[in-house]
Amino acid sequence: MTTKAKKINIALDASVPLQNPIKIHESMRYSLLAGGKRVRPILCLAACELVGGDEATAIPMACAVEMIHTMSLIHDDLPCMDDDDLRRGKPTNHKAFGEETAILAGDALLSLAFHHVAAKTRNVEPHRVVRAVAELGSAIGSEGLVAGQMVDICSEGKEVGLDELEYIHVHKTSKLLEAAVVCGAIIGGGDGIVVEGLRKYARCIGLLFQVVDDILDVTKSSKELGKTAGKDLASRKATYPRLMGLEKAKEFARELVGNAVEELRQFDALRAAPLYHLAGYIASRQN
Amino acid sequence: MTTKAKKINIALDASVPLQNPIKIHESMRYSLLAGGKRVRPILCLAACELVGGDEATAIPMACAVEMIHTMSLIHDDLPCMDDDDLRRGKPTNHKAFGEETAILAGDALLSLAFHHVAAKTRNVEPHRVVRAVAELGSAIGSEGLVAGQMVDICSEGKEVGLDELEYIHVHKTSKLLEAAVVCGAIIGGGDGIVVEGLRKYARCIGLLFQVVDDILDVTKSSKELGKTAGKDLASRKATYPRLMGLEKAKEFARELVGNAVEELRQFDALRAAPLYHLAGYIASRQN
Repeated sequence: MTTKAKKINIALDASVPLQNPIKIHESMRYSLLAGGKRVRPILCLAACELVGGDEATAIPMACAVEMIHTMSLIHDDLPCMDDDDLRRGKPTNHKAFGEETAILAGDALLSLAFHHVAAKTRNVEPHRVVRAVAELGSAIGSEGLVAGQMVDICSEGKEVGLDELEYIHVHKTSKLLEAAVVCGAIIGGGDGIVVEGLRKYARCIGLLFQVVDDILDVTKSSKELGKTAGKDLASRKATYPRLMGLEKAKEFARELVGNAVEELRQFDALRAAPLYHLAGYIASRQN
Repeated sequence: MTTKAKKINIALDASVPLQNPIKIHESMRYSLLAGGKRVRPILCLAACELVGGDEATAIPMACAVEMIHTMSLIHDDLPCMDDDDLRRGKPTNHKAFGEETAILAGDALLSLAFHHVAAKTRNVEPHRVVRAVAELGSAIGSEGLVAGQMVDICSEGKEVGLDELEYIHVHKTSKLLEAAVVCGAIIGGGDGIVVEGLRKYARCIGLLFQVVDDILDVTKSSKELGKTAGKDLASRKATYPRLMGLEKAKEFARELVGNAVEELRQFDALRAAPLYHLAGYIASRQN
């Protein structure tokens, strides 16, 4: 995992050179290179290898997924959205660069993601690149990330049930993880039930990711998390621990890990090892 | 032209169905279907036909270009950017739906654009779709639209020279027009000097578009324009009429039309007719 994360960090650093106009590139680099866990790009590379592809061919796609993730964080943190001051232990992008630059940096990262995949992917059949771009596009828009954030914002201050909570998390978190895995598999030469099995794996992992996030919000301090802790509770926001209780939420997390690894059984266990590892890592992470 | 615009409007309407979450789709449709002049998508279809392609194959790309244009208008109108209340004779998106929805609608339109091209383009070699996606991505990001808006914002209240003004307009306006034409030509089967000739045409047209905009801002009323007139002058913003004088700006516009049509000489005059027409239309438009 560390090797993959290092490769991704090097590729991300090279993907946004510090050129004119300086401020926008500083702002993009500030958030993109802020030391995220790189879960999504690692999943992308791992899925590419799992289906027999060469990891190197999926590096541009892995970077694209992280650019999009970063863009969604920058925009979600804005004052008119979640109004967050702290992200990954540092001031949020708009706190550091101003709102207008933060909005533009997000827009630039989003378009760079697609440019990057289309312009930098090598040794992959073009029809696979086209399929991956279509998949990635639908993961972000009004049927993906944006839909999740929209319903999340609209539900603030209202009573939210488990179904709606799952809708929000599937869209805000799972969709992009799903795209990371599915696009990695498509780039790597995967098709049909192989890709669909990995899609199911990614959906479970995505929801797991969010359930764990909710659990950490109520059990850890801001310092441990690198972001404002207890915020969900303070804002009376719907979370799994609040709707289910903490113990039931932990049980749900266990169930999701189980379902995710079940989907990996169709693969050679050794080749699937990174995906087993990631499921375990997400379930047991402490920040 | 009217036939092309009608086809585009029908395709745009179908590209964003009014589905759940309703509010985000309403917001996207509100701005996308607000009756813009469709100059960019028309250019895209015309370029496709000019190089011998079937217009129908470029419809998804034409829609994508208009989605991106709309997204840039929504984000540029935000309070922390140009803070505009009126656009195409109606309240701006954030005035009608709120800031958070406006930001998300822009993000959704941007990602939908790429999804749409990749998922809906038919009967075009995949490597052409990949090239067009790369071209489109670079037109928007930190070397395209976003760069122009960034420098524009940073230059407010400062003395701006003609070079910087041209940088702003080339990036804010020409880049997307250029992408519209170049992508249309790529989709239509164009390569090499044909595409590069059309790129030069589009650059002239893009700059022309902005020079005419600046001229209209000082010579027309808000009612005639469908947006706040005299705003550039009131805000002491750099414009061609302000830096060159109104007459010199008109002369510059004439020069740009001349250079644009010069690039069309390599083509069959009848087939190039729509592009001649557009150059003339942009030069003589009244709103």
